[in-house]
Amino acid sequence: MTASGNFRYVALADEIQENIMTGQFRPGEKLPSLRKLHNQLGLSVSTIHQAYIELEKRGRVEAREKSGFYVRALLKNPLPSPRKDQEKAAPSRVKINALAETILSDLQSENMLQLGAAVASREFMPVKQLSRIMKSMSVDELGTSIATYDPCIGNTDLRHALAKQMLGNACKVFPDDIITTNGCLEAVSLCLRAVADPGDTILVESPVFHCFLQLIEDLNMYVLELPGCPDQGMDPDAFEAIVSSNDIKACLLNTNFQNPLGSVLSPEGKKAVLKIANSRGLPIIEDDIYGDLYYGDKRPATFKSMDTSGSVLYCSSFSKTLAPGLRAGWTIPGKYREKVIRLKLNTQLSCPGISHRVAARFMETGAYDRHLRRLRNQVKNQASALAIAISNHFPKDTRLTFPRGGMMIWIELNKAIDTMTIYQRARTHNVSIMPGRICSSSDRYNHCLRLNCGIKWGPELEKGVALLGRLIRDAYREKGIQPEASEGKKR
Amino acid sequence: MTASGNFRYVALADEIQENIMTGQFRPGEKLPSLRKLHNQLGLSVSTIHQAYIELEKRGRVEAREKSGFYVRALLKNPLPSPRKDQEKAAPSRVKINALAETILSDLQSENMLQLGAAVASREFMPVKQLSRIMKSMSVDELGTSIATYDPCIGNTDLRHALAKQMLGNACKVFPDDIITTNGCLEAVSLCLRAVADPGDTILVESPVFHCFLQLIEDLNMYVLELPGCPDQGMDPDAFEAIVSSNDIKACLLNTNFQNPLGSVLSPEGKKAVLKIANSRGLPIIEDDIYGDLYYGDKRPATFKSMDTSGSVLYCSSFSKTLAPGLRAGWTIPGKYREKVIRLKLNTQLSCPGISHRVAARFMETGAYDRHLRRLRNQVKNQASALAIAISNHFPKDTRLTFPRGGMMIWIELNKAIDTMTIYQRARTHNVSIMPGRICSSSDRYNHCLRLNCGIKWGPELEKGVALLGRLIRDAYREKGIQPEASEGKKR
Repeated sequence: MTASGNFRYVALADEIQENIMTGQFRPGEKLPSLRKLHNQLGLSVSTIHQAYIELEKRGRVEAREKSGFYVRALLKNPLPSPRKDQEKAAPSRVKINALAETILSDLQSENMLQLGAAVASREFMPVKQLSRIMKSMSVDELGTSIATYDPCIGNTDLRHALAKQMLGNACKVFPDDIITTNGCLEAVSLCLRAVADPGDTILVESPVFHCFLQLIEDLNMYVLELPGCPDQGMDPDAFEAIVSSNDIKACLLNTNFQNPLGSVLSPEGKKAVLKIANSRGLPIIEDDIYGDLYYGDKRPATFKSMDTSGSVLYCSSFSKTLAPGLRAGWTIPGKYREKVIRLKLNTQLSCPGISHRVAARFMETGAYDRHLRRLRNQVKNQASALAIAISNHFPKDTRLTFPRGGMMIWIELNKAIDTMTIYQRARTHNVSIMPGRICSSSDRYNHCLRLNCGIKWGPELEKGVALLGRLIRDAYREKGIQPEASEGKKR
Repeated sequence: MTASGNFRYVALADEIQENIMTGQFRPGEKLPSLRKLHNQLGLSVSTIHQAYIELEKRGRVEAREKSGFYVRALLKNPLPSPRKDQEKAAPSRVKINALAETILSDLQSENMLQLGAAVASREFMPVKQLSRIMKSMSVDELGTSIATYDPCIGNTDLRHALAKQMLGNACKVFPDDIITTNGCLEAVSLCLRAVADPGDTILVESPVFHCFLQLIEDLNMYVLELPGCPDQGMDPDAFEAIVSSNDIKACLLNTNFQNPLGSVLSPEGKKAVLKIANSRGLPIIEDDIYGDLYYGDKRPATFKSMDTSGSVLYCSSFSKTLAPGLRAGWTIPGKYREKVIRLKLNTQLSCPGISHRVAARFMETGAYDRHLRRLRNQVKNQASALAIAISNHFPKDTRLTFPRGGMMIWIELNKAIDTMTIYQRARTHNVSIMPGRICSSSDRYNHCLRLNCGIKWGPELEKGVALLGRLIRDAYREKGIQPEASEGKKR
């Protein structure tokens, strides 16, 4: 025990805080009971209680009625944030290889520790409830879903449930404003095709979700990457500068817990960006798939909720917040509605009826809100735990964005490191990560990586992060890099 | 009774044949028992039996063991076939309006007689069996489908079941050759994008499935229409001429019960076409969605079964043969496999797992083959009944293709008639048809229409065809057309 200040309880609080920061107490974990600590340390119950109250004041723990004290998720970044990219943006063809496919196929491997993709553990999804809803449907009701094409615009029940769900959350819309899709990416694909043609340039925030890049390439369009700020999201002034000096056809943005940065653009920032886009007749495709996974008290705003001209094409899905196998996505394409319906009609006629009906039924029971509250809490605690583990195992000069929501942490290593090497080496140990290389059409994020915080925290995960730390240190050694004074904190 | 020849039984056979041809006895319907006809007509049981045997020899009826005599489906066209189109082919931009969407949205209307789309009646689909398979899945199995993304290439069970099912039918392939899709049209869309780029020209057979035209337009490609022969399908010489004199990037063909013509290209024709295509490095996208719905004894061949170079991209789905709401389609893209996987990955990641699993389970039980036999018989009988009704109710100069399989009849009226007018007027009577205008980027089929023969035959359908006949006669009158000698046969 190290003393700090004059009081015994402060010293104890300091010690416990240190244990939290080094990951010995995990976010969401219950602290030992007063009685237990009293027996262990020989301190008075009152001193221990005072220490817990002190930690509560510092925001490190929270008291839960009749249950005890629990470690709170981190409120601050345990490591510095990545530097904002200053590279000049220029339109370019996308250059990405088969890596993305390998990363998805890794998802099928049960032995692989899934740190590469952005997925929640199965135990956090209400799969039993969803399965039971499906099993409880009558043969006749299932038969109707099986025997008929759902309307092209989408399952009527789902569109009604979505409109109700989004009211007071993402935005206020009518059921007929919504078009359902086979996941969010299909929504984005239809919207991109609705607003732009081959040869057009699409503005994205960089680093960027690799599927956006590949989709843009597949549609024979160009991509222009505007560097995002890890903490603040996109800078409206930089946005204005880039759209004034380039011939851009549309923007594809992911401003709430941006993938992979995890940043959020403030409501004022969104208003400013939307105003600039509107003044230039630029449609904004808004991917809000992580919007409901906020770690704070309030859902972040959407462009759609501020859209008065119909030039925002909102896209989302349940793949991150409910269950990816439902393939339930949707778009609210504003004034591009007719075009999107037409494109959907001519590529797939209609979506799978049954799973969309199940999603609707789940929302109708009111269970979705309860589920979201639990999921948000889980993911927030896991993000904290992951951030702590990274700060413990990775070299000292590592930077990371501590996200305000969503399902991932973005990490910046020493510029000399190529995370493709780490990716390849980690895979041989059955650990999957997402190398920064696929998050840009340039090479500017080759020293970065993205990790998933949707997985339930436990020793296996800790081991995975420790392994990554070892591999990264090995790479540092091979390059002859000394991360500042030491090789990083040891646990 | 009119006598014909010397024998009483021949006269009776003639009379019954006339009744079959005018639709009083419908294909699939049971003829009256010997006893019943004996009581009605006063003829000896032996004479009546002889008449039935005579009709069996003529191919009009068939004896079913321990059951009696049943009217056989037509073997020949009751009306002349449409003329082969002689118009010169030239690449063009597709010009189709919102009509296609209206036709699909008509499918949602329960009051509409669905003669416009190509869909089977719900009662012909094994919806109860499929629903029960779904309900019998354990919460855990359903949960796995819900909680996870299926592999991008497609559900493993479905791909195995498909490979087994297609063996000895469509073609011999391995499960890993197959990529599942959200319906056949998505398969075609992915294949088109895999083999051609914006600005490229795609060869199709004309008249053509309207969704192909719209898809080609949406992908910023050009279409070149090669007129098909209503009876023989595509002419290999004409194919050679057109591919030598035009810069074509790929062919999109539907050679088995072509939509809308219903024609089949012979195995020799297919071989010839494939050879020509191969010699020019031209990939063929083969849409075989109707291939299993043959009315004869044998499944027609596929390009894929003759493909040795991997340049055939086979596409199909269960939407016509099992149930459209399953959204279970697939493609076998040969050497374009990697490209198709990539395109699928970047637009929708994966297909809905549950309904694809149900389709696999259904095939595994062996029920699919039994179901197909029943469905083929049903649709064949309905095609006959529909053809007879058309020959009874439509003007005398009507031509139609009597299909050898599939789910539609293509009808040619007097050139002065615009079937858009018929379409609009029929809709006000809650009857939906498909006007020929949307089956080409030119106006050359404006006097044609396509009718669905997937619906269970009955008085309501007869009434619908009679209504169409009346509307068409009205249109003839307005244009001052006298269809040959009379206004057509009266019943």
